[in-house]
Amino acid sequence: MERVFVVGAGMTKIGRFYERSARDLFREALWKAIDDAGGLRPQAIVVGNMTSSVLMEQDSLGALLADYSGFRGLPAFKVEAACGSGGAAVYAGYALVKSGLVDVVAVGGVEKLTEGVTSEATKALAQAADSEYELIYGTTFTGLNALVMRLYMETFKYDRSDFAYWPLRMHEYASYNPYAQLPRKTTLDAILNSPLIADPIRLFDASPIGDGAAVVLLVRGEERAREVAKAVGKDILVELASVSMATDSVDLASRRDLLTMESTVKATREALGKAGLELKNIDYAEVHDAFSITGLLALEDIGFAPKGEAPRLWKEGRFGKGDKPEVNFSGGLKARGHPVGATGVYQVAEAFMQIRGDFPGFKASSPETALTHNIGGVATFTSIAILKRYR
Amino acid sequence: MERVFVVGAGMTKIGRFYERSARDLFREALWKAIDDAGGLRPQAIVVGNMTSSVLMEQDSLGALLADYSGFRGLPAFKVEAACGSGGAAVYAGYALVKSGLVDVVAVGGVEKLTEGVTSEATKALAQAADSEYELIYGTTFTGLNALVMRLYMETFKYDRSDFAYWPLRMHEYASYNPYAQLPRKTTLDAILNSPLIADPIRLFDASPIGDGAAVVLLVRGEERAREVAKAVGKDILVELASVSMATDSVDLASRRDLLTMESTVKATREALGKAGLELKNIDYAEVHDAFSITGLLALEDIGFAPKGEAPRLWKEGRFGKGDKPEVNFSGGLKARGHPVGATGVYQVAEAFMQIRGDFPGFKASSPETALTHNIGGVATFTSIAILKRYR
Repeated sequence: MERVFVVGAGMTKIGRFYERSARDLFREALWKAIDDAGGLRPQAIVVGNMTSSVLMEQDSLGALLADYSGFRGLPAFKVEAACGSGGAAVYAGYALVKSGLVDVVAVGGVEKLTEGVTSEATKALAQAADSEYELIYGTTFTGLNALVMRLYMETFKYDRSDFAYWPLRMHEYASYNPYAQLPRKTTLDAILNSPLIADPIRLFDASPIGDGAAVVLLVRGEERAREVAKAVGKDILVELASVSMATDSVDLASRRDLLTMESTVKATREALGKAGLELKNIDYAEVHDAFSITGLLALEDIGFAPKGEAPRLWKEGRFGKGDKPEVNFSGGLKARGHPVGATGVYQVAEAFMQIRGDFPGFKASSPETALTHNIGGVATFTSIAILKRYR
Repeated sequence: MERVFVVGAGMTKIGRFYERSARDLFREALWKAIDDAGGLRPQAIVVGNMTSSVLMEQDSLGALLADYSGFRGLPAFKVEAACGSGGAAVYAGYALVKSGLVDVVAVGGVEKLTEGVTSEATKALAQAADSEYELIYGTTFTGLNALVMRLYMETFKYDRSDFAYWPLRMHEYASYNPYAQLPRKTTLDAILNSPLIADPIRLFDASPIGDGAAVVLLVRGEERAREVAKAVGKDILVELASVSMATDSVDLASRRDLLTMESTVKATREALGKAGLELKNIDYAEVHDAFSITGLLALEDIGFAPKGEAPRLWKEGRFGKGDKPEVNFSGGLKARGHPVGATGVYQVAEAFMQIRGDFPGFKASSPETALTHNIGGVATFTSIAILKRYR
């Protein structure tokens, strides 16, 4: 079968855009991707989104965004996998082009969390949890992750100050990213003195509420990818070497081990196998750090760090510039931002640009390979994508 | 590329199941499909659903249903395209197996409309419309379709009694269908004297509010399909010869022609082309009759009837037993029922069983080919699937 390539990417800045609608954000990202691919038009649109039904009172989102962006008529649908909706959209979009259903697909994600007040957004996001076994007891998404962080601290003997180095570095990286919601450096003091929002999670341990949209254009076949590269004057082809997806129980009480994101372990193994790569071949990664604890668990469950050691290694400076892999130079969900259903697409767009060498933020060291890790719920879903410079 | 086959199907009875949850319904349908395929297990699950976010306060639906059905860990996600979510799930599921991402996929749909009171369901369903340009004015989904029916009556000089023959025959067919929500015959009198719910649409012109789930199992490759057929002692292979999808504007004010479902015209043309068939080759069809007007427009826009003539032809008895094509022997959305996101999957399950010769309701005349037509919104989405006996 023919290979799949990423040939264009577009992102909006992430923020609280009370004056802009989801359709407006999506259109901007889609047309930026089209421009980035020398004018290449999509033949289908797949949209990752979590909260449009609740916060926007809007279903039919796929057709709505296609029409508003100037593509009335194209096949279009929404994919939902909670905060992992973007990664799931990449998975489905890859299948659309790989199968030959279409030759060019726009895989996008959009989220408009400021459509309601913040408490409504918090409630909508909590719907990632099991409504009959968790939500009904009044849990929030932050509350569930706090349970995980507390258990991790007790099991592996960490103090909460050990986690502060995650947001510290995310803010540093985001300060270079023109699309980031929080593009400013911070200090250990500010992090450690930020308000507790669900003990032991402090405000600075949590990704912010924000709006945004991202789109990547995927094509089937080296020839199409070369045509685009030629048209835009780039000589680097980026293959979407593999995509994978795995799930876990929604409710945490049913998990075998709260400190292992089994869907991440499984999806990573599958994606590497399909791409014919080993973990040591991965030069760059964007991992899903909805909370500090999530980003650190991701490093362990992908396999970049031994279990129980990610906070220590991270604090020592590992995974920074010049290391292998380099991680989250976008600023991560923490500081680039986390427009829920768009996040998985931002990650693929960022990895693509890092390989192509033109990411407009903190630059990786000419990576040949990149892995993106997007989860939904407390790792109820994991989607992995592996991108590779094609030679 | 290898062909895709339908090898198993499972459906729940449709009804108002206040005592059953969506996960319960889905599990029943999935395991019926697995049993129907001789025990073949899926490697991924795609779920069509519209209203879980609003009525069940539940996202993460794909993983939730996978886990509850005994398949924790599998790739799983929800697809939303309003009332066309089931057809869109078939489209995405086809891509998953055709692309080689998995070898066996369970494509399902589930809807639990009795989770809230009926007015909540009506509101949730109205979210198929454009929230900023239509819903905000208080429209309902029935109201929008009433506009279309009135214009059709005025343009083509029909009386509303001409439309009564649609529900009349749907109820007749449904009386044979063990899965139908309304398995009972009715009379012209009952139809014509039923309450007006959105002039000129009467109660009996509208599909009922109901819960249900359906699943089909798709595999890639003739060999796998033959193995299943052998295991279950059937000698008929049913190919999913093509799938297609097209969209239109969400808001009706932007349509070129309210009396033509352009997404249906476009998706039908594409599906036939991909399957290498002409319309005259189609022996059997399940069309989307959310309202009487919708079913009749479907006949015209698929191309089975000239524009403006479907009500007359239908009244004359066309599309019944022995005609070509035979249409909606399930009883249609009108009387089999319309568990929104599951409907498109019910249709494919029914077409599959009609070709295999074991549909447990009103039987078609040994069809070799079948077309299913599932729409979302007022034909904002159309998904077409073409099934073919493989020889």
